[in-house]
Amino acid sequence: MRRTLMVTPLVVHAIAGPGAGIASAQEPDVAEVAAAVDNVWLVVAAILVMFMQAGFALVEAGFTRAKNAGNIIMKNVMDFSVGGITYWAFGFALAYGGTSVSGFLSYGDVFFFNDNSRAGEWFFQVVFAATAATIISGAVAGRVKFSSYLIYTPFITGLIYPIVTHWIWGGGWLSSQGFTDFAGSGVVHMLGGSAALAGVIVVGPRIGKYTPSGKPLPIPGHSVTLGALGVFILWFGWYGFNAGSTLTVVGADIATPAVTTTLAACAGSIGAMFTAWLVVGKPDVGYTLNGVLAGLVGITAGADHLSFGAAILVGLVAGIIMVFSVIWLERAGIDDPVGAISVHGAAGLWGVLSVGILGSGSIAIQTFGALAIIAWAFGSSFLVFKVIDITVGMRVSEVEEIDGLDRSEHGGEAYPEFVFQEQVAHRHLLDPVGT
Amino acid sequence: MRRTLMVTPLVVHAIAGPGAGIASAQEPDVAEVAAAVDNVWLVVAAILVMFMQAGFALVEAGFTRAKNAGNIIMKNVMDFSVGGITYWAFGFALAYGGTSVSGFLSYGDVFFFNDNSRAGEWFFQVVFAATAATIISGAVAGRVKFSSYLIYTPFITGLIYPIVTHWIWGGGWLSSQGFTDFAGSGVVHMLGGSAALAGVIVVGPRIGKYTPSGKPLPIPGHSVTLGALGVFILWFGWYGFNAGSTLTVVGADIATPAVTTTLAACAGSIGAMFTAWLVVGKPDVGYTLNGVLAGLVGITAGADHLSFGAAILVGLVAGIIMVFSVIWLERAGIDDPVGAISVHGAAGLWGVLSVGILGSGSIAIQTFGALAIIAWAFGSSFLVFKVIDITVGMRVSEVEEIDGLDRSEHGGEAYPEFVFQEQVAHRHLLDPVGT
Amino acid sequence: MRRTLMVTPLVVHAIAGPGAGIASAQEPDVAEVAAAVDNVWLVVAAILVMFMQAGFALVEAGFTRAKNAGNIIMKNVMDFSVGGITYWAFGFALAYGGTSVSGFLSYGDVFFFNDNSRAGEWFFQVVFAATAATIISGAVAGRVKFSSYLIYTPFITGLIYPIVTHWIWGGGWLSSQGFTDFAGSGVVHMLGGSAALAGVIVVGPRIGKYTPSGKPLPIPGHSVTLGALGVFILWFGWYGFNAGSTLTVVGADIATPAVTTTLAACAGSIGAMFTAWLVVGKPDVGYTLNGVLAGLVGITAGADHLSFGAAILVGLVAGIIMVFSVIWLERAGIDDPVGAISVHGAAGLWGVLSVGILGSGSIAIQTFGALAIIAWAFGSSFLVFKVIDITVGMRVSEVEEIDGLDRSEHGGEAYPEFVFQEQVAHRHLLDPVGT
Repeated sequence: MRRTLMVTPLVVHAIAGPGAGIASAQEPDVAEVAAAVDNVWLVVAAILVMFMQAGFALVEAGFTRAKNAGNIIMKNVMDFSVGGITYWAFGFALAYGGTSVSGFLSYGDVFFFNDNSRAGEWFFQVVFAATAATIISGAVAGRVKFSSYLIYTPFITGLIYPIVTHWIWGGGWLSSQGFTDFAGSGVVHMLGGSAALAGVIVVGPRIGKYTPSGKPLPIPGHSVTLGALGVFILWFGWYGFNAGSTLTVVGADIATPAVTTTLAACAGSIGAMFTAWLVVGKPDVGYTLNGVLAGLVGITAGADHLSFGAAILVGLVAGIIMVFSVIWLERAGIDDPVGAISVHGAAGLWGVLSVGILGSGSIAIQTFGALAIIAWAFGSSFLVFKVIDITVGMRVSEVEEIDGLDRSEHGGEAYPEFVFQEQVAHRHLLDPVGT
Repeated sequence: MRRTLMVTPLVVHAIAGPGAGIASAQEPDVAEVAAAVDNVWLVVAAILVMFMQAGFALVEAGFTRAKNAGNIIMKNVMDFSVGGITYWAFGFALAYGGTSVSGFLSYGDVFFFNDNSRAGEWFFQVVFAATAATIISGAVAGRVKFSSYLIYTPFITGLIYPIVTHWIWGGGWLSSQGFTDFAGSGVVHMLGGSAALAGVIVVGPRIGKYTPSGKPLPIPGHSVTLGALGVFILWFGWYGFNAGSTLTVVGADIATPAVTTTLAACAGSIGAMFTAWLVVGKPDVGYTLNGVLAGLVGITAGADHLSFGAAILVGLVAGIIMVFSVIWLERAGIDDPVGAISVHGAAGLWGVLSVGILGSGSIAIQTFGALAIIAWAFGSSFLVFKVIDITVGMRVSEVEEIDGLDRSEHGGEAYPEFVFQEQVAHRHLLDPVGT
Repeated sequence: MRRTLMVTPLVVHAIAGPGAGIASAQEPDVAEVAAAVDNVWLVVAAILVMFMQAGFALVEAGFTRAKNAGNIIMKNVMDFSVGGITYWAFGFALAYGGTSVSGFLSYGDVFFFNDNSRAGEWFFQVVFAATAATIISGAVAGRVKFSSYLIYTPFITGLIYPIVTHWIWGGGWLSSQGFTDFAGSGVVHMLGGSAALAGVIVVGPRIGKYTPSGKPLPIPGHSVTLGALGVFILWFGWYGFNAGSTLTVVGADIATPAVTTTLAACAGSIGAMFTAWLVVGKPDVGYTLNGVLAGLVGITAGADHLSFGAAILVGLVAGIIMVFSVIWLERAGIDDPVGAISVHGAAGLWGVLSVGILGSGSIAIQTFGALAIIAWAFGSSFLVFKVIDITVGMRVSEVEEIDGLDRSEHGGEAYPEFVFQEQVAHRHLLDPVGT
């Protein structure tokens, strides 16, 4: 078995283009080369989207307590691991199986997927499914039983998400209505945000989040740098998500979605930062970083065809909406530690509607489709969470929650060598100003 | 709206290449496929360069104090966010607008950029503009007003950097002189380093950096691991920066710049490590990591055509120069917390000159061009910083600086759960050896 | 020197495909475009593999003590830096030089490599060489002299690894026997794991790892989040490692290895998690993360042709094997702080054999080849480590080890601002429950 590109000088010279050194034994035909380009783009884009898992893990871990960081990592790894196997077994078939059942779901010969000719497509779709799943993880951080979370995961990646994708991207009933969502503001993010809302309602707020009178208290995350790195990784991977959603590149425009994505993210962070500056009095780091994500979520539905000016507007509004959504949800008793419902749900809804307002979609159909996705994602997730809660219980005990999920659920700590504020009994030893 | 590559078996078989499964309705022509390959390369390279923003954020945050980490993140996010919008509004037009004004700047129909046919090009250029801007952020870390920094940012991405790019890459006056800089040792890095020097001179050193007699004191960074990760991310993204600067791939050689980039980075870290070992007595981690970056900065100007042996020499010398530059600047009262002026300015200058010494350029013209870039970048940035300083002030108050910019400027902390050395009042409780 | 894609409207229109805006002066021919696609894939895949260096650095640093984090970073940076220069000088020639000496090693005109036509190939191979080298770094973490490690590094990247690659991928004697290893379960990972075992045997366990009676004690790592990020980065880069090992894309299937890689990683983490749950009683974070890596290592040999179901089986078994290997080695007195021998060695061996059991290989020849690689890698590495140990010494002094390598070897600390548990003399001040 040789694994070298070395060829005889003769052959190299025969095809001596400037990038030569790589030679084929025979002249390839154009269709084969075109298929190769399309494959490279699809696979590279999927690899970028896969890396978003790291971004989600860091955003969720960085913006929550250190005592739950390992648990968050575990949930994120399992979202992809359980999700990948589930999507292989039946998720992909339900979405893109070929034979549609009334436009609601499909089936076909891709149960226990083993069709090498569709491998690139499966790879691109599975990383989207994992993205939808991982949105929920952050919203229910810090109080959910790991084993119960493991039960929920295959439902979102294997059932709830694939069915919605069939509706819109698999040729199902919503696509027949003219509903349009280029890369998934609604199909992926609003779906994830709706499911997250259902989860948060079922499990309730974290201990210490609200005073007895119901006033919300801040529970700051343990590492702004890790959270910020997560946001940068998501931004990076989002180019695969949006520009990759052209699926092909020959005869397609992959640069336009890259530009709209960039501009919306920029505008999202600016919109969120100035809104926070006005509302909470400071250019808050967390809101600004979530503003990047809100801008990205917002542009995802129309990234392919909105004008660059419209992309800036979409991002700006997404950033502003996100800040008010976070504040309003917190006041309403919805404890979403990382703002996932606002970033993915609220900005995702705005993204779906923006295609009706500024783009090629119909505002009525976009609104109707958004409601359908929310109803399905919230309803089915609520049902699953509720059944798990009633049977085995969704929530850890009070003692376990206070102790932290890393110790109680996983038998370890994320940072065993460091000293934490709450470990220091005599707090008067600490100078609060830190000089 | 369908989003699946599924086609009827008939069509798949019709173009049954080994990578099939992806099919086009009709045979594409060669020019279309060639354009697609070029687009994939340009967009992927730009995505890699975009990710360098994460690298800069981590290098700057990791190598400075924990109490300013959130502020550094904010400056980096805003460099790209404000920079992106500015480059969309007028930066791109000033650099590549088409109609040149005496080779100094250009204008054209790309103000408020909305030309989909140039989307790939804009995307590639905007991430370079953001790179130039973010170099300054680290050099002025720990003492600059966030609002004042926000005023400076659009000047570098919208005006100072685009004008220099027009001189060299937009067909302007320096390119007419035969000045050559393949991917931006001078255009991006030396420019950023020169602007950083201007900023540092205007804002002055951090409190505690120098004894009353002017002796420099070390202020170590708070996380070597985050800083190192930043360096690895920059190295990774630099392949987009250098190899991507071929812009096209059909009829171009993208592998040679990847190899020269690799070898120069390797040699840069070795050069810096052994120099530090000799000068400070230990293989210092910070110098070695900055050596990687110095090697990368150095090779950037000649990455396309220098021999591999020459690339090693360029990297080695860049690493050595950087160490002495850091030591010399520190002694001269220039407080650059992360060594940005040395890494980007000094090694960038060496990179520009190396193309005259070892490569295709003229040493006289390279020297002249370098001086022109330094004069412009330093002069214009000094003016902007000085005007901001006189009017609204560049620097935070002494109390705010000691308290840390995260609390004073952004109302939060990067690591609220951890206990810091300076918070422990009774330092005798701590065993300095840490056993 | 122009660096803009701007062309006259006339030319753009002449080739007005949808992705246009990028134009060539003349029509390229199909072979040239095919070479360009292949180049893009090879270079992008190599860039992804290069980024695995960041993953290794974080996995090794995160899963070991904070007092050695900077040292781990240094070893990883030097693995690539020294390795890159060595592979340029002679490593590549020994593997792929063209003229084979009895199938054992090769030589040719690529000493002091300067052949631009093979630049892409060299770039892809050097990042594999660096991967092999960096596996050892984690296994010997916390007690090895930095200068002695620097002596070992060129042996693995310049000699031990290139010779094995010649045997299998360079047309050498093992490939003539029909031994097959698609992307390096054996050639890279088992080789690295075997060398790591040799290193650990020579240097011995860390102080405090075993009680006087030989009972192993846990020494937990200092940052689960950084370790987890490292695993995600490795997963991400592994797509370049496995899918990139097609080397070309025109007439090749890059999507199948991406899918097998995904499924094996998913199954590896699930297999390891449930095994740990049964054996140690909790879904342990470290084992689960190492399960991802074991799954990836396991599938690497057969990623191109195993069925998707077989890929899941390979990953699952790899995850299970890894857990038992870690436990068994620890009991046997082999102190491998990050589990590198189990993840790369044991799962790598399984990967090589799996191609004989489930794939296209012969089980006899795969077994024979595995033994040959282990014998060579372990034997030659043991010899080098032993000679270094006898002459200059492999291990730091007891005082230096307890103090931490960052201070003793590099004159600094990775986290100088944070307070560590062991620094707090009066431990009764700390509430062990952390509430």
